[in-house]
Amino acid sequence: MFTPFDYQMMSRAIELAKGGVFTTQPNPNVGCVITQGEQIVGEGFHARAGEPHAEVHALRMANEQAQGATAYVTLEPCSHHGRTPPCAEGLINAKVAKVICAMQDPNPQVAGRGIQMLRDAGIEVEVGLLEADAIALNPGFIKRMTSGMPFVQLKMAASLDGQTALNNGQSQWITSAAARRDVQKFRAKAGGILSTSKTVIEDDASLTVRWDELPPSVQVNYPQHQLRQPVRVILDRQNQLHDGLKLYQHSGEVLVLGTEHTSLLNSNQTQFELADTLAYLAEQSQMNHLWVEAGATLARSLIQAQLVDEIILYLAPKIMGSDGRGLFGALGLSSMADTLELIIKDVRQVGPDIRIIAVPKIKDK
Amino acid sequence: MFTPFDYQMMSRAIELAKGGVFTTQPNPNVGCVITQGEQIVGEGFHARAGEPHAEVHALRMANEQAQGATAYVTLEPCSHHGRTPPCAEGLINAKVAKVICAMQDPNPQVAGRGIQMLRDAGIEVEVGLLEADAIALNPGFIKRMTSGMPFVQLKMAASLDGQTALNNGQSQWITSAAARRDVQKFRAKAGGILSTSKTVIEDDASLTVRWDELPPSVQVNYPQHQLRQPVRVILDRQNQLHDGLKLYQHSGEVLVLGTEHTSLLNSNQTQFELADTLAYLAEQSQMNHLWVEAGATLARSLIQAQLVDEIILYLAPKIMGSDGRGLFGALGLSSMADTLELIIKDVRQVGPDIRIIAVPKIKDK
Repeated sequence: MFTPFDYQMMSRAIELAKGGVFTTQPNPNVGCVITQGEQIVGEGFHARAGEPHAEVHALRMANEQAQGATAYVTLEPCSHHGRTPPCAEGLINAKVAKVICAMQDPNPQVAGRGIQMLRDAGIEVEVGLLEADAIALNPGFIKRMTSGMPFVQLKMAASLDGQTALNNGQSQWITSAAARRDVQKFRAKAGGILSTSKTVIEDDASLTVRWDELPPSVQVNYPQHQLRQPVRVILDRQNQLHDGLKLYQHSGEVLVLGTEHTSLLNSNQTQFELADTLAYLAEQSQMNHLWVEAGATLARSLIQAQLVDEIILYLAPKIMGSDGRGLFGALGLSSMADTLELIIKDVRQVGPDIRIIAVPKIKDK
Repeated sequence: MFTPFDYQMMSRAIELAKGGVFTTQPNPNVGCVITQGEQIVGEGFHARAGEPHAEVHALRMANEQAQGATAYVTLEPCSHHGRTPPCAEGLINAKVAKVICAMQDPNPQVAGRGIQMLRDAGIEVEVGLLEADAIALNPGFIKRMTSGMPFVQLKMAASLDGQTALNNGQSQWITSAAARRDVQKFRAKAGGILSTSKTVIEDDASLTVRWDELPPSVQVNYPQHQLRQPVRVILDRQNQLHDGLKLYQHSGEVLVLGTEHTSLLNSNQTQFELADTLAYLAEQSQMNHLWVEAGATLARSLIQAQLVDEIILYLAPKIMGSDGRGLFGALGLSSMADTLELIIKDVRQVGPDIRIIAVPKIKDK
């Protein structure tokens, strides 16, 4: 069905899509390549919400050469009028002959409509080329569209023996500068950073993306003047945040969820209902991708509520002793059958540290 | 000084040497290649203590073609009469023209004597080709020869959050079958396995190498009938071991260090002086390479005494909570400057688990 040339062109479109990885939130990353015969005549990617979609950039570059061409798009072209006109319409108007999409629109409410529009206009459409790679481009957007929840990455850091601080609370520089740079990259990709007033106040954390701390490989593709700050979402049930914090000394939005968000709190108003809170962020803030940096309590609660998609765990090459503060606090387990199970997705050295990406196994509720 | 052909031949000799990795204890792994021009005329490796050395095998294969040949040996040929005659003499009698050694004998008392014997007989000798690789063949033998202490690998296993058991002691199958096979490989390479009566009794552990649990890649090169059992060294200060234990239901030597070893105990006879104990094993049992499987107490003591060369840590993809039993127990640290620092040497996935090899940083005593 697909030729080697098709694979090559869709691979190129996927690489192009990655150009928007730090900036398209809440929109998805999309890339597009337009070919005449075996010649690329247009290409583009979606760079930023409110700016043209990938197809528009590629069509502009192709100009009249789009007529009779094949368009490779990593996501089904949109069929609705948003801040920009529908891309399906653009492709029809440009008279392309064929469109190959890596995947359908993940929103089940609209999936297939763009494809239908194209087919109705007599354009040949094929779907599913390098679909897994296209899915991997947009874990957050796809999760929000399909489930109404953001994709949640939980960042944790500990010594090799699982301690986040000594018994007296000392924890400075557990992990290395290389690991902190790596964290900056994850923050930069997220739509929001979730933390608690307790963590923010204890560490006087700004929770911003600092361009000069991004890895050089990121800086090259992400100019400082384009820096987008993820929304910092702080759970502050007892109104403890105050103006003197570093949190407020940097540009970028801060969303405080506090006493006025009664609908997000449990019935006796003692804690946030985390599933409701994440659903609220997905709906109200179009939050695709949430990066969580907090303490053991929030980490444990999110995992136990099965709201975490990935744990990003940095282990420093240190032994601190088990009388310190443990990663997830006490769980009170009495049987090995009740341990929380994970699947290791990736493990590597980051500077002197180890980084583990682990995916919680889904349990029957 | 060395030609590409020389490098190729010494690489071959090093690969040959690995053929003895499970069986030469307490002798070193040594490989030898003999060439005439660009032709290999003999090769061999040392397979087992008491059997011929690598050079003898290679000389036998080369026969009269050894005359005028070049011999590549991964270790300086021995100059003393042991259970076999000195290899330097063998090379002289065979009239080889040139000997290239990867490294000198690590024992400073005899280093250089074999080389001198060869030179005195008019043979050209060069030393140092692929020396680092030759050193890596024999960490245990070299450490014992240079310091009088065995090379110590400390095996540990925990959940991702550093717990070795739940609070009630449950710990069955923290790590996977793949990790347990990996452990079998490490055990098989060791000269001895060190544990305590507490661990042996609690787990009713046999601490043997089980051939059918070795990874298939090892089984291929290590036939079942050649299986060598490392000496099981059990610290048993209070004479708690008894005949009913699995420890005694398998072939292989068990060395119990108990109350009669007063010279290895501290002045009030309450614990083993670990440095003295390891030195004793190196001297009395020619122990090159000790694999330690025990609990948090011995692990912590060995690390604090700076007696551990490598920590082999298996982390299972599980969260157990910090109210379980921690890897190294309480250390009572009050400053991050006092944490025990390590260097990560290797990290990889072993089945569903993670294996980390970490080297303790040397601290000023």
